[in-house]
Amino acid sequence: MSQAPPRAGGLGEHTLARAALAYLAEPGDPVLGALLGIYEPAEVLAAIKADMLPGTGPGCGGSPASRKALERALGRWRVRLPALPSDEDIAGACREGIRLVGPGDPEWPSRLDRLGQARPYALWLRGNADLGFSCQRSVSVVGSRAATGYGTHVAGELAADLGERGWVIVSGGAYGIDAAAHRGALAAEAITIAVLACGVDYPYPAGHAELFSAIAAQGLIVSEWPPGRRPARMRFLIRNRTIAAMTSGTVIVEAGERSGALNTARHAADLGQPLMAVPGPVTSAQSAGCHRIIREWNASCVTRAADIIELLSPLNAPDALAPGGGLEPASSPVSGPPGPDSLPSRDDLDPNSARVLDALPTRGGAGTSTIAVDAGVDLDTVLRCLGRLAGYGFIERGDSGWRLRKRG
Amino acid sequence: MSQAPPRAGGLGEHTLARAALAYLAEPGDPVLGALLGIYEPAEVLAAIKADMLPGTGPGCGGSPASRKALERALGRWRVRLPALPSDEDIAGACREGIRLVGPGDPEWPSRLDRLGQARPYALWLRGNADLGFSCQRSVSVVGSRAATGYGTHVAGELAADLGERGWVIVSGGAYGIDAAAHRGALAAEAITIAVLACGVDYPYPAGHAELFSAIAAQGLIVSEWPPGRRPARMRFLIRNRTIAAMTSGTVIVEAGERSGALNTARHAADLGQPLMAVPGPVTSAQSAGCHRIIREWNASCVTRAADIIELLSPLNAPDALAPGGGLEPASSPVSGPPGPDSLPSRDDLDPNSARVLDALPTRGGAGTSTIAVDAGVDLDTVLRCLGRLAGYGFIERGDSGWRLRKRG
Repeated sequence: MSQAPPRAGGLGEHTLARAALAYLAEPGDPVLGALLGIYEPAEVLAAIKADMLPGTGPGCGGSPASRKALERALGRWRVRLPALPSDEDIAGACREGIRLVGPGDPEWPSRLDRLGQARPYALWLRGNADLGFSCQRSVSVVGSRAATGYGTHVAGELAADLGERGWVIVSGGAYGIDAAAHRGALAAEAITIAVLACGVDYPYPAGHAELFSAIAAQGLIVSEWPPGRRPARMRFLIRNRTIAAMTSGTVIVEAGERSGALNTARHAADLGQPLMAVPGPVTSAQSAGCHRIIREWNASCVTRAADIIELLSPLNAPDALAPGGGLEPASSPVSGPPGPDSLPSRDDLDPNSARVLDALPTRGGAGTSTIAVDAGVDLDTVLRCLGRLAGYGFIERGDSGWRLRKRG
Repeated sequence: MSQAPPRAGGLGEHTLARAALAYLAEPGDPVLGALLGIYEPAEVLAAIKADMLPGTGPGCGGSPASRKALERALGRWRVRLPALPSDEDIAGACREGIRLVGPGDPEWPSRLDRLGQARPYALWLRGNADLGFSCQRSVSVVGSRAATGYGTHVAGELAADLGERGWVIVSGGAYGIDAAAHRGALAAEAITIAVLACGVDYPYPAGHAELFSAIAAQGLIVSEWPPGRRPARMRFLIRNRTIAAMTSGTVIVEAGERSGALNTARHAADLGQPLMAVPGPVTSAQSAGCHRIIREWNASCVTRAADIIELLSPLNAPDALAPGGGLEPASSPVSGPPGPDSLPSRDDLDPNSARVLDALPTRGGAGTSTIAVDAGVDLDTVLRCLGRLAGYGFIERGDSGWRLRKRG
């Protein structure tokens, strides 16, 4: 999907309309997902405001059942119309340390498009890391809130080891395993991403306000719910699909038989994405879910970071042997990210990427059009090369634009 | 293979000759295994005694390399000729609470024939349980000698639970996991079988003399080495294939990366037999081997007796859906044993089996020819029906013959 020209606050028209839709409809609403598969976001938004859905007028066809579902959905969404902020207010929230990305934006993680109509309408972000590039070498590490000492120890160690090897740790910001995973990544000075089931400015659980500040400073807080939105039980389940879809693979560290982490695991399995679980004592109820998915869902039994990296390495990716699979932009939704030892050196780069790399400052930052001028390549090529270079760890996005990154 | 008429001590000619060969050659000797695939045991024995192997005389053909291997083997075996006991002495040892079974004997576990030329020459037994029928619903539970408290606890619980559900526990009689498995079965008043790498009268390890007495009283001590033979490092590895082959499936409870239990696991995997492992803390070196075989050898991750029984139940057996697979004699080498809930009632039996069952005493015991006369069926049919009835738990073999068994 190509993005329309920027409007309020530099946001694209589609992204602004998608943000407005996220205020009106619950993320994961299948009716809105289906509509967005047919119409532009701004068309859907305008139709809701006019109390007239596209395709629902008299004589427009469609089965009575689908018309009924559309009318019911319209009713649900219109209830929230009076509280819908203006485009300026939506953009205003984004100037206060929060930014908004939608499909088609450079920072949008293309893996999310595997969710099809169930993909998030838009994502609000807090923090400086680049979401799209962070997701390219990422692992979701999730598990029980009621974790044991064993579980939090293992989650922290795994996340730190993965972080040290250049992998981004994605989790849900909850107590227990999630928090241990985030903290392990922070300790390794790695990027970590908390995907919340409430607004990115809403500290839930409250006891994690400080942890969220640390995550925002070093990584990202992400949500498909607008700022200020509170968490709700159903929202955690909707959120879980995003955690599973945006990463290269999912690791369950501890999960009781009824843990919500198994819902994330189910999404990973349904997406055909590598699903892994850490075993534990068979005498521990908190490991029962892990053992069950190893036995029944064919989750891989992993015990250390090296096991996880091996499973996510390009040799295990389905298209590892396809032509060009090794150095294609890692944003391709089906190709796995490169392994830690397969990162190309500067000499391995294609001529355009090398030119873009030479145009980047070591400090501060440069915007894409500045880079395009300096490198002497067109804007589309700049964007593609930036993706490639960030995916391989050469560069990063700071507050003031793109810059070189120290390679470990 | 049909058994020749009984000779010294009621032993068949083939079994006596095989026992003599076990005195001369190490079990697992590939040259002897190959010879026994071609010649009768008594022929091979006579040839060794005459210093003239069958097929090795001048002008008999065969490649020079294989002739050389045969001559070298002949040299190895003849060294032990002076210490070879007479048939009477071999049979004499069998009267002192030890009995001897070979392929073709009714008590021989037909599963061992899956080993092909590597199957044991013969087996010495101590204890009253019937080996062939005990193996039909059996699980090998093995693991590290240097077990943790967690491992011995889990091994004991698993063995007791399996024993209570009518499964026979087979293990190696070693310290650690093996001993815990035997003890768990004994506590559940179940049959347990210790397969040793030394003579069945040789208490190794010495600290297990009392345990072996208890096992012999309630189950069986089994060895393919003659009475009096000492254990040796290589013998444990040779023994492991027998443990894997004689059971319905193998469970590894704890195993370090270099544990001998992984050798048993390898045999189970090579035989295409269900291989299972119990997970443990990833922080425990004694569980590392279990996790590795779950991840790399596709061992099933099991946490309780019910998991194991489910994997060994007939619905999971490869031929469960083959015609007649459900109630075929369980001695068929490829069919799995029946699950605990699938045991037939008396009404389900075929007419001959029902007749044989009616001919059996509740106390004491009856010999096969007495049963044949009482039931009015021929001896072959009696043997087949006895196998079926014992496999399904209707009958058992006591000191004085066959008798009805109380069904739990």
